[in-house]
Amino acid sequence: MTLSLRQRRRLQTAREIQLATLRLADARGLDEVTTEAIAERAGISTRTFFNYFPNKEAAAMGVPPGFPEDALADLAQGTGHLGADLKTFLGVHLDQLREDREILQHLTALGHSSPRLKHLLETLLLNLSEDLAATLARRMPTAPEHLSQMLAEWAMRVTGQAIRLWIEDEADSLHAGLDMAWAEQRDVARMLFG
Amino acid sequence: MTLSLRQRRRLQTAREIQLATLRLADARGLDEVTTEAIAERAGISTRTFFNYFPNKEAAAMGVPPGFPEDALADLAQGTGHLGADLKTFLGVHLDQLREDREILQHLTALGHSSPRLKHLLETLLLNLSEDLAATLARRMPTAPEHLSQMLAEWAMRVTGQAIRLWIEDEADSLHAGLDMAWAEQRDVARMLFG
Repeated sequence: MTLSLRQRRRLQTAREIQLATLRLADARGLDEVTTEAIAERAGISTRTFFNYFPNKEAAAMGVPPGFPEDALADLAQGTGHLGADLKTFLGVHLDQLREDREILQHLTALGHSSPRLKHLLETLLLNLSEDLAATLARRMPTAPEHLSQMLAEWAMRVTGQAIRLWIEDEADSLHAGLDMAWAEQRDVARMLFG
Repeated sequence: MTLSLRQRRRLQTAREIQLATLRLADARGLDEVTTEAIAERAGISTRTFFNYFPNKEAAAMGVPPGFPEDALADLAQGTGHLGADLKTFLGVHLDQLREDREILQHLTALGHSSPRLKHLLETLLLNLSEDLAATLARRMPTAPEHLSQMLAEWAMRVTGQAIRLWIEDEADSLHAGLDMAWAEQRDVARMLFG
Protein backbone atom coordinates (compact mmCIF):
# COMPACT_ATOMS: atom_id res chain seq x y z
CA MET A 1 0.00 0.00 0.00
CA THR A 2 1.53 3.32 -1.10
CA LEU A 3 0.53 6.45 0.80
CA SER A 4 0.18 9.90 -0.73
CA LEU A 5 2.33 12.73 0.60
CA ARG A 6 -0.76 14.10 2.38
CA GLN A 7 -1.46 10.77 4.04
CA ARG A 8 2.13 10.43 5.17
CA ARG A 9 2.06 13.95 6.63
CA ARG A 10 -1.15 13.14 8.47
CA LEU A 11 0.36 9.94 9.91
CA GLN A 12 3.46 11.88 10.95
CA THR A 13 1.37 14.48 12.80
CA ALA A 14 -0.69 11.73 14.46
CA ARG A 15 2.55 10.14 15.63
CA GLU A 16 3.82 13.44 17.06
CA ILE A 17 0.56 13.88 18.98
CA GLN A 18 0.82 10.29 20.22
CA LEU A 19 4.40 10.76 21.42
CA ALA A 20 3.50 14.05 23.15
CA THR A 21 0.62 12.26 24.90
CA LEU A 22 2.72 9.30 26.00
CA ARG A 23 5.64 11.42 27.24
CA LEU A 24 3.33 13.64 29.29
CA ALA A 25 1.47 10.59 30.63
CA ASP A 26 4.73 8.90 31.54
CA ALA A 27 5.63 11.79 33.82
CA ARG A 28 2.27 12.34 35.55
CA GLY A 29 -0.14 9.55 34.54
CA LEU A 30 -2.66 9.74 31.71
CA ASP A 31 -5.46 10.87 34.06
CA GLU A 32 -3.56 14.06 34.88
CA VAL A 33 -2.84 14.98 31.26
CA THR A 34 -5.18 17.43 29.50
CA THR A 35 -5.73 17.69 25.77
CA GLU A 36 -4.59 21.33 26.09
CA ALA A 37 -1.24 20.21 27.50
CA ILE A 38 -0.86 17.61 24.75
CA ALA A 39 -1.64 20.17 22.04
CA GLU A 40 0.87 22.62 23.51
CA ARG A 41 3.58 19.98 23.73
CA ALA A 42 2.91 18.80 20.16
CA GLY A 43 2.88 22.40 18.88
CA ILE A 44 -0.67 22.25 17.56
CA SER A 45 -4.05 23.76 18.50
CA THR A 46 -6.59 21.73 20.51
CA ARG A 47 -8.82 22.03 17.46
CA THR A 48 -6.17 20.18 15.44
CA PHE A 49 -5.88 17.61 18.25
CA PHE A 50 -9.58 16.77 17.96
CA ASN A 51 -9.21 16.62 14.17
CA TYR A 52 -6.94 13.61 14.81
CA PHE A 53 -8.22 11.91 17.96
CA PRO A 54 -11.52 12.01 19.91
CA ASN A 55 -9.76 11.90 23.32
CA LYS A 56 -6.41 11.44 25.05
CA GLU A 57 -6.76 7.66 25.31
CA ALA A 58 -7.19 7.43 21.55
CA ALA A 59 -4.17 9.73 21.13
CA ALA A 60 -2.13 7.43 23.40
CA MET A 61 -3.08 4.47 21.18
CA GLY A 62 -2.19 6.41 18.01
CA VAL A 63 -2.72 4.64 14.68
CA PRO A 64 -1.46 1.10 15.29
CA PRO A 65 -0.77 -0.84 12.07
CA GLY A 66 -3.04 -3.75 11.22
CA PHE A 67 -1.65 -6.85 9.58
CA PRO A 68 -0.17 -6.08 6.13
CA GLU A 69 -2.65 -7.13 3.41
CA ASP A 70 0.06 -8.82 1.32
CA ALA A 71 1.25 -10.88 4.27
CA LEU A 72 -2.32 -11.96 5.08
CA ALA A 73 -2.80 -13.06 1.46
CA ASP A 74 0.49 -14.99 1.49
CA LEU A 75 -0.48 -16.72 4.71
CA ALA A 76 -3.95 -17.62 3.43
CA GLN A 77 -2.59 -19.07 0.19
CA GLY A 78 0.64 -20.58 1.53
CA THR A 79 1.24 -24.30 1.16
CA GLY A 80 4.40 -24.66 3.24
CA HIS A 81 4.63 -25.81 6.86
CA LEU A 82 2.06 -23.85 8.84
CA GLY A 83 4.48 -23.02 11.67
CA ALA A 84 7.12 -21.69 9.27
CA ASP A 85 4.60 -19.65 7.27
CA LEU A 86 3.07 -18.21 10.44
CA LYS A 87 6.47 -17.19 11.79
CA THR A 88 7.29 -15.45 8.50
CA PHE A 89 3.95 -13.65 8.68
CA LEU A 90 4.57 -12.46 12.24
CA GLY A 91 8.02 -11.26 11.24
CA VAL A 92 6.55 -9.09 8.45
CA HIS A 93 3.94 -7.73 10.87
CA LEU A 94 6.51 -6.91 13.54
CA ASP A 95 8.66 -5.11 10.94
CA GLN A 96 6.00 -2.40 10.96
CA LEU A 97 6.81 -1.66 14.61
CA ARG A 98 10.57 -1.39 14.31
CA GLU A 99 10.57 2.42 14.77
CA ASP A 100 8.06 2.25 17.64
CA ARG A 101 10.14 0.99 20.56
CA GLU A 102 9.50 4.08 22.69
CA ILE A 103 5.78 4.01 21.89
CA LEU A 104 5.51 0.33 22.83
CA GLN A 105 7.39 0.92 26.08
CA HIS A 106 5.05 3.75 27.09
CA LEU A 107 1.92 1.85 26.08
CA THR A 108 2.96 -1.27 27.99
CA ALA A 109 3.56 0.76 31.13
CA LEU A 110 0.42 2.90 30.84
CA GLY A 111 -1.87 0.00 29.95
CA HIS A 112 -1.62 -1.19 33.55
CA SER A 113 -2.64 2.12 35.12
CA SER A 114 -5.36 3.40 32.77
CA PRO A 115 -8.43 1.13 32.50
CA ARG A 116 -9.69 3.00 29.42
CA LEU A 117 -6.37 2.62 27.62
CA LYS A 118 -6.20 -1.02 28.70
CA HIS A 119 -9.61 -1.57 27.15
CA LEU A 120 -8.50 0.04 23.86
CA LEU A 121 -5.39 -2.14 23.81
CA GLU A 122 -7.40 -5.30 24.51
CA THR A 123 -9.86 -4.39 21.75
CA LEU A 124 -6.99 -3.85 19.30
CA LEU A 125 -5.46 -7.23 20.13
CA LEU A 126 -8.85 -8.94 19.89
CA ASN A 127 -9.46 -7.42 16.45
CA LEU A 128 -6.01 -8.49 15.23
CA SER A 129 -6.60 -11.98 16.59
CA GLU A 130 -9.93 -12.21 14.75
CA ASP A 131 -8.34 -11.01 11.49
CA LEU A 132 -5.65 -13.64 11.81
CA ALA A 133 -8.13 -16.38 12.72
CA ALA A 134 -10.22 -15.55 9.63
CA THR A 135 -7.10 -15.77 7.45
CA LEU A 136 -6.09 -19.11 8.98
CA ALA A 137 -9.63 -20.40 8.44
CA ARG A 138 -9.32 -19.47 4.75
CA ARG A 139 -6.09 -21.45 4.61
CA MET A 140 -7.62 -24.48 6.34
CA PRO A 141 -11.24 -24.54 5.14
CA THR A 142 -11.90 -28.05 6.46
CA ALA A 143 -10.37 -27.57 9.93
CA PRO A 144 -12.68 -26.86 12.88
CA GLU A 145 -13.18 -23.14 13.53
CA HIS A 146 -11.83 -23.23 17.08
CA LEU A 147 -8.48 -24.45 15.75
CA SER A 148 -7.99 -21.25 13.71
CA GLN A 149 -8.94 -19.21 16.76
CA MET A 150 -6.51 -21.06 19.03
CA LEU A 151 -3.70 -20.69 16.51
CA ALA A 152 -4.44 -16.97 16.20
CA GLU A 153 -4.51 -16.47 19.97
CA TRP A 154 -1.28 -18.39 20.24
CA ALA A 155 0.31 -16.19 17.55
CA MET A 156 -0.82 -13.03 19.38
CA ARG A 157 0.83 -14.26 22.59
CA VAL A 158 4.10 -14.98 20.79
CA THR A 159 3.92 -11.52 19.20
CA GLY A 160 3.38 -9.92 22.60
CA GLN A 161 6.25 -11.89 24.07
CA ALA A 162 8.55 -10.86 21.18
CA ILE A 163 7.67 -7.20 21.78
CA ARG A 164 8.22 -7.58 25.53
CA LEU A 165 11.67 -9.18 25.05
CA TRP A 166 12.62 -6.30 22.74
CA ILE A 167 11.41 -3.37 24.83
CA GLU A 168 12.88 -4.90 28.00
CA ASP A 169 16.32 -5.21 26.34
CA GLU A 170 16.35 -8.99 26.45
CA ALA A 171 16.41 -9.14 22.64
CA ASP A 172 18.37 -6.83 20.32
CA SER A 173 15.61 -6.54 17.75
CA LEU A 174 12.01 -7.51 17.17
CA HIS A 175 13.18 -10.36 14.97
CA ALA A 176 15.51 -11.64 17.68
CA GLY A 177 12.62 -11.35 20.14
CA LEU A 178 10.40 -13.36 17.79
CA ASP A 179 13.09 -16.04 17.47
CA MET A 180 13.42 -16.27 21.26
CA ALA A 181 9.67 -16.29 21.93
CA TRP A 182 9.13 -18.89 19.22
CA ALA A 183 11.88 -21.17 20.60
CA GLU A 184 10.46 -20.87 24.12
CA GLN A 185 7.01 -21.92 22.94
CA ARG A 186 8.51 -24.85 21.05
CA ASP A 187 10.36 -25.92 24.22
CA VAL A 188 7.13 -25.78 26.21
CA ALA A 189 5.26 -27.77 23.54
CA ARG A 190 7.99 -30.42 23.52
CA MET A 191 7.97 -30.75 27.28
CA LEU A 192 4.19 -31.19 27.30
CA PHE A 193 3.62 -33.30 24.21
CA GLY A 194 7.07 -34.52 23.08
CA MET B 1 -6.76 -31.84 54.64
CA THR B 2 -9.64 -32.75 56.97
CA LEU B 3 -11.97 -29.98 58.10
CA SER B 4 -13.67 -29.81 61.49
CA LEU B 5 -17.45 -29.74 61.66
CA ARG B 6 -17.26 -26.04 62.51
CA GLN B 7 -15.06 -25.32 59.49
CA ARG B 8 -17.40 -27.27 57.22
CA ARG B 9 -20.40 -25.33 58.52
CA ARG B 10 -18.58 -22.08 57.92
CA LEU B 11 -17.72 -23.04 54.36
CA GLN B 12 -21.34 -24.08 53.78
CA THR B 13 -22.64 -20.71 54.98
CA ALA B 14 -20.06 -18.89 52.84
CA ARG B 15 -21.27 -20.89 49.86
CA GLU B 16 -24.92 -19.99 50.57
CA ILE B 17 -24.00 -16.32 50.76
CA GLN B 18 -22.05 -16.64 47.51
CA LEU B 19 -24.96 -18.30 45.70
CA ALA B 20 -27.41 -15.68 46.99
CA THR B 21 -25.06 -12.95 45.72
CA LEU B 22 -24.60 -14.53 42.30
CA ARG B 23 -28.30 -15.26 41.77
CA LEU B 24 -29.28 -11.69 42.67
CA ALA B 25 -26.47 -10.30 40.49
CA ASP B 26 -27.54 -12.49 37.59
CA ALA B 27 -30.98 -10.88 37.63
CA ARG B 28 -30.01 -7.22 38.03
CA GLY B 29 -26.21 -6.89 37.78
CA LEU B 30 -23.82 -6.86 40.73
CA ASP B 31 -23.81 -3.04 40.90
CA GLU B 32 -27.54 -3.02 41.72
CA VAL B 33 -27.29 -5.65 44.48
CA THR B 34 -27.01 -4.46 48.09
CA THR B 35 -25.49 -6.40 50.98
CA GLU B 36 -28.89 -6.05 52.70
CA ALA B 37 -30.60 -7.84 49.80
CA ILE B 38 -27.96 -10.57 49.83
CA ALA B 39 -28.32 -11.10 53.58
CA GLU B 40 -32.10 -11.28 53.25
CA ARG B 41 -31.90 -13.78 50.41
CA ALA B 42 -29.35 -15.93 52.29
CA GLY B 43 -31.45 -15.77 55.48
CA ILE B 44 -28.74 -14.12 57.58
CA SER B 45 -28.15 -10.70 59.14
CA THR B 46 -25.95 -8.11 57.43
CA ARG B 47 -23.72 -8.41 60.49
CA THR B 48 -23.21 -12.09 59.67
CA PHE B 49 -22.58 -11.17 56.01
CA PHE B 50 -19.67 -8.94 57.03
CA ASN B 51 -18.40 -11.68 59.31
CA TYR B 52 -17.83 -13.69 56.11
CA PHE B 53 -17.01 -11.19 53.37
CA PRO B 54 -15.84 -7.54 53.32
CA ASN B 55 -18.07 -6.61 50.34
CA LYS B 56 -20.35 -8.03 47.66
CA GLU B 57 -17.55 -8.59 45.16
CA ALA B 58 -15.74 -10.79 47.70
CA ALA B 59 -19.03 -12.62 48.35
CA ALA B 60 -19.43 -13.22 44.60
CA MET B 61 -15.93 -14.74 44.54
CA GLY B 62 -16.67 -16.91 47.57
CA VAL B 63 -13.87 -19.15 48.85
CA PRO B 64 -12.30 -20.59 45.70
CA PRO B 65 -10.14 -23.66 46.34
CA GLY B 66 -6.39 -23.37 45.87
CA PHE B 67 -4.41 -26.24 44.42
CA PRO B 68 -4.57 -29.32 46.71
CA GLU B 69 -1.35 -29.58 48.76
CA ASP B 70 -0.99 -33.31 48.06
CA ALA B 71 -1.30 -32.80 44.34
CA LEU B 72 1.29 -30.00 44.40
CA ALA B 73 3.70 -32.29 46.28
CA ASP B 74 3.10 -35.13 43.81
CA LEU B 75 3.74 -32.81 40.88
CA ALA B 76 6.91 -31.38 42.43
CA GLN B 77 8.33 -34.84 43.17
CA GLY B 78 7.01 -36.69 40.12
CA THR B 79 9.45 -38.32 37.74
CA GLY B 80 7.05 -39.36 34.97
CA HIS B 81 6.42 -37.49 31.71
CA LEU B 82 5.82 -33.85 32.58
CA GLY B 83 2.76 -33.54 30.34
CA ALA B 84 1.11 -36.62 31.84
CA ASP B 85 1.88 -35.57 35.42
CA LEU B 86 0.61 -32.05 34.80
CA LYS B 87 -2.62 -33.33 33.30
CA THR B 88 -3.18 -35.60 36.33
CA PHE B 89 -2.53 -32.62 38.60
CA LEU B 90 -5.07 -30.45 36.76
CA GLY B 91 -7.62 -33.26 36.95
CA VAL B 92 -7.26 -33.43 40.75
CA HIS B 93 -7.57 -29.64 40.97
CA LEU B 94 -10.67 -29.54 38.77
CA ASP B 95 -12.28 -32.30 40.90
CA GLN B 96 -12.65 -29.67 43.59
CA LEU B 97 -15.00 -27.69 41.34
CA ARG B 98 -17.32 -30.53 40.33
CA GLU B 99 -20.21 -29.21 42.50
CA ASP B 100 -19.65 -25.61 41.38
CA ARG B 101 -21.05 -25.55 37.86
CA GLU B 102 -23.68 -22.90 38.67
CA ILE B 103 -21.12 -20.77 40.52
CA LEU B 104 -18.68 -20.94 37.61
CA GLN B 105 -21.40 -20.02 35.12
CA HIS B 106 -22.41 -16.96 37.14
CA LEU B 107 -18.82 -15.86 37.72
CA THR B 108 -17.90 -16.20 34.05
CA ALA B 109 -20.88 -14.05 33.03
CA LEU B 110 -20.43 -11.43 35.75
CA GLY B 111 -16.66 -11.14 35.33
CA HIS B 112 -17.28 -9.30 32.06
CA SER B 113 -19.62 -6.69 33.50
CA SER B 114 -18.05 -5.91 36.89
CA PRO B 115 -14.51 -4.50 36.71
CA ARG B 116 -13.98 -5.08 40.47
CA LEU B 117 -15.01 -8.72 40.20
CA LYS B 118 -12.90 -9.10 37.07
CA HIS B 119 -9.92 -7.79 39.01
CA LEU B 120 -10.52 -10.30 41.84
CA LEU B 121 -10.77 -13.15 39.33
CA GLU B 122 -7.59 -12.07 37.56
CA THR B 123 -5.77 -11.84 40.89
CA LEU B 124 -6.95 -15.35 41.84
CA LEU B 125 -5.74 -16.80 38.53
CA LEU B 126 -2.43 -14.96 38.83
CA ASN B 127 -1.88 -16.35 42.34
CA LEU B 128 -2.72 -19.88 41.20
CA SER B 129 -0.38 -19.51 38.25
CA GLU B 130 2.44 -18.36 40.54
CA ASP B 131 1.85 -21.29 42.93
CA LEU B 132 2.01 -23.71 40.03
CA ALA B 133 5.11 -22.06 38.54
CA ALA B 134 6.88 -22.35 41.92
CA THR B 135 5.99 -26.05 42.10
CA LEU B 136 7.23 -26.67 38.55
CA ALA B 137 10.45 -24.81 39.37
CA ARG B 138 10.96 -27.20 42.33
CA ARG B 139 10.51 -30.13 39.96
CA MET B 140 12.95 -28.70 37.40
CA PRO B 141 15.59 -26.88 39.49
CA THR B 142 18.00 -26.48 36.58
CA ALA B 143 15.48 -25.22 34.01
CA PRO B 144 15.25 -21.47 33.33
CA GLU B 145 12.64 -19.71 35.48
CA HIS B 146 10.60 -18.41 32.56
CA LEU B 147 9.97 -22.00 31.42
CA SER B 148 8.14 -22.82 34.68
CA GLN B 149 6.12 -19.63 34.30
CA MET B 150 5.18 -20.38 30.71
CA LEU B 151 4.17 -23.94 31.60
CA ALA B 152 2.05 -22.63 34.48
CA GLU B 153 0.35 -20.00 32.30
CA TRP B 154 -0.29 -22.66 29.70
CA ALA B 155 -1.83 -24.95 32.35
CA MET B 156 -4.08 -22.12 33.58
CA ARG B 157 -5.34 -21.55 30.04
CA VAL B 158 -6.11 -25.25 29.58
CA THR B 159 -7.91 -25.25 32.94
CA GLY B 160 -9.99 -22.24 31.91
CA GLN B 161 -10.82 -23.87 28.60
CA ALA B 162 -11.86 -27.12 30.35
CA ILE B 163 -14.18 -25.13 32.64
CA ARG B 164 -15.61 -23.21 29.68
CA LEU B 165 -16.33 -26.40 27.72
CA TRP B 166 -18.12 -27.83 30.77
CA ILE B 167 -20.26 -24.84 31.70
CA GLU B 168 -21.21 -24.25 28.05
CA ASP B 169 -22.41 -27.87 27.71
CA GLU B 170 -19.76 -28.82 25.17
CA ALA B 171 -18.29 -31.36 27.62
CA ASP B 172 -20.26 -33.65 29.95
CA SER B 173 -17.87 -33.25 32.87
CA LEU B 174 -14.83 -31.29 33.95
CA HIS B 175 -12.67 -34.31 33.14
CA ALA B 176 -14.15 -34.58 29.65
CA GLY B 177 -13.54 -30.84 29.25
CA LEU B 178 -9.92 -31.29 30.32
CA ASP B 179 -9.47 -34.13 27.82
CA MET B 180 -10.91 -31.97 25.02
CA ALA B 181 -8.92 -28.87 25.93
CA TRP B 182 -5.73 -30.91 26.24
CA ALA B 183 -6.24 -32.58 22.86
CA GLU B 184 -6.92 -29.21 21.21
CA GLN B 185 -3.68 -27.78 22.58
CA ARG B 186 -1.77 -30.85 21.40
CA ASP B 187 -3.26 -30.41 17.91
CA VAL B 188 -2.17 -26.77 17.85
CA ALA B 189 1.35 -27.68 19.02
CA ARG B 190 1.63 -30.37 16.33
CA MET B 191 0.50 -27.99 13.60
CA LEU B 192 3.05 -25.40 14.69
CA PHE B 193 6.03 -27.53 15.61
CA GLY B 194 5.28 -31.05 14.33
